[in-house]
Amino acid sequence: MKALVYKGPNQLTIEDKPIPQPNHGEVLIKLAYAGICGTDMLCYHGGMENRVRPPVILGHEFSGTVETVGLESKFHKGDKVTVEPLITCGRCNGCQIGEYNLCSSLNLIGIDSDGAMAGYICVPEENVYKLTDNISLKAAAFVEPLAVCVHLAQKAEITDGQNVLIVGGGPIGLISAFVARIKGARVFISEIEDFRIRTAEEFGFEVINPNKESVIETLEDKTDKRGADISIEATGTDTGLITCIEATGVKGTVVVAGLPKKPATIDTYRIVAKEINMIGTRVYKKEDYVEALQLMQSGKFNPHPLISRIESLETVIENGFRAIDRREEVIKILIDFENEG
Amino acid sequence: MKALVYKGPNQLTIEDKPIPQPNHGEVLIKLAYAGICGTDMLCYHGGMENRVRPPVILGHEFSGTVETVGLESKFHKGDKVTVEPLITCGRCNGCQIGEYNLCSSLNLIGIDSDGAMAGYICVPEENVYKLTDNISLKAAAFVEPLAVCVHLAQKAEITDGQNVLIVGGGPIGLISAFVARIKGARVFISEIEDFRIRTAEEFGFEVINPNKESVIETLEDKTDKRGADISIEATGTDTGLITCIEATGVKGTVVVAGLPKKPATIDTYRIVAKEINMIGTRVYKKEDYVEALQLMQSGKFNPHPLISRIESLETVIENGFRAIDRREEVIKILIDFENEG
Repeated sequence: MKALVYKGPNQLTIEDKPIPQPNHGEVLIKLAYAGICGTDMLCYHGGMENRVRPPVILGHEFSGTVETVGLESKFHKGDKVTVEPLITCGRCNGCQIGEYNLCSSLNLIGIDSDGAMAGYICVPEENVYKLTDNISLKAAAFVEPLAVCVHLAQKAEITDGQNVLIVGGGPIGLISAFVARIKGARVFISEIEDFRIRTAEEFGFEVINPNKESVIETLEDKTDKRGADISIEATGTDTGLITCIEATGVKGTVVVAGLPKKPATIDTYRIVAKEINMIGTRVYKKEDYVEALQLMQSGKFNPHPLISRIESLETVIENGFRAIDRREEVIKILIDFENEG
Repeated sequence: MKALVYKGPNQLTIEDKPIPQPNHGEVLIKLAYAGICGTDMLCYHGGMENRVRPPVILGHEFSGTVETVGLESKFHKGDKVTVEPLITCGRCNGCQIGEYNLCSSLNLIGIDSDGAMAGYICVPEENVYKLTDNISLKAAAFVEPLAVCVHLAQKAEITDGQNVLIVGGGPIGLISAFVARIKGARVFISEIEDFRIRTAEEFGFEVINPNKESVIETLEDKTDKRGADISIEATGTDTGLITCIEATGVKGTVVVAGLPKKPATIDTYRIVAKEINMIGTRVYKKEDYVEALQLMQSGKFNPHPLISRIESLETVIENGFRAIDRREEVIKILIDFENEG
């Protein structure tokens, strides 16, 4: 099978790899679609060297059809599925108290071990979710990032009537905005790039461009001086986090969602003065996958408008990874394996 | 009356001031005892210039007896009292939602306006709490810092059986340790100064000296790898905050209690990876004063062993403020006004 392999900082290649064989309790999945995630980009640029040991096949947002199952499997060949890509140790404190997403030796497939940007992948059967008929294989590649945002919204306790500020209108920022709106919040997005501003506005979100106006002042004006009840940092930058802290009102919540590229310098006095709650949120758990699938099944979240391009494995390095580097106007790029050998 | 006046960075003087006259709804209190707080020290060194406008009389931890009351007052001359030193605007968002401790124009008497290191002080009657017979006037000077720690413990949700790490064994760290123990927690204190280590150990707390051992490793060893459920930063330093973040286990809470002298540089990825909850806590509200008074009345918290020295106004600059600067072996220093004119 062909696979997209990360070989080291800024080095991606397409290589021939043997089709993996399922061990006991595993399912072999023939890939349908895989999405490029911001974390894949961070990894590609060498930003996750403490975890990623090249060569590694990237890809953790994906869908496919079941190819081979073990004895006594609840799946059948041809089942359309998506996968929760977390493999955990079961022994650390996080795992022992049921918070397996915080596993101290978390294996996120496609980052810590070989992932799904390949013709086939083997995963533990317990990580596989069967799709209902009304969820397309393209949509199913969005279950993973949607689960990230569902987990985040649950952690932040987003509820009806709240003012939610999202700093960063990339895929996670945008999907978080949809989830916050589904929960009944009024959503503001802070974003500087024209294409992302236009896109967020087309989806009906209120956008603030910090290069043109003060996020804090605009938000205060629009919320009767209340500021954000919840701010979500989805850029991974100091500036984003500082904006969140400043724009959040008394007893509000700041969610650290963007993976920081370096330590952040923040004025903790502002956290004290407003008794802000700053929380970290990491991936998802089973219940988040279940909720994400329900949001798609019910039609409350439709990911199709977020698909900017569909590429093949052969074209995705140039038209996907490098296109994102060139800041081309894209939200989500999917790799299509359905027509591959 | 004599008063201790902050004139500018590192300048304190004793001056003659007129005894203030109570306006409608105010009570004139004759001072008994006032404590020196870490915030007074920060202010003395010019660290709060954004709030403190000299000349200002310092002092916000104090007790006294009622001297003059207005018409229809519930107090009588001679009542022994302590005071919640917050005067709030009543109009900002914090005040409007009942979180008056987060008032955006908070007037903390002794910082933002003239305080209690003087023969007399006028305060709004609603800020005055009458002491029960078994609370001494010396003890009553501790109600304010105790209320800080009660508020902090309530915000952090300290409960029975938790491991609580307190970074910094000064007065707030130490009083927080007592409160955490009262709530049923196992308390660890990280401290580097010999006298503070000895003192904390004499009070029965487990002390870790980060100059001699790793706080993180020692805590993991002593908590079956669980780490701290709650860490309280009570030094106002980067190092303290980083220690808290590292020593806190999955889904744990980091409390920012120490007023930072400058912005802190922290690795927010650690907050994400463990889904840490980092919370700010600011002063107290009425219910915290009530609980603090109950803890003293019931004998659960006895502040007398924390009194290192009792000075007069005339001696306190040298034997109090400057003694603390010289790192003399003191916990709390009280100013005694009972024998003053």
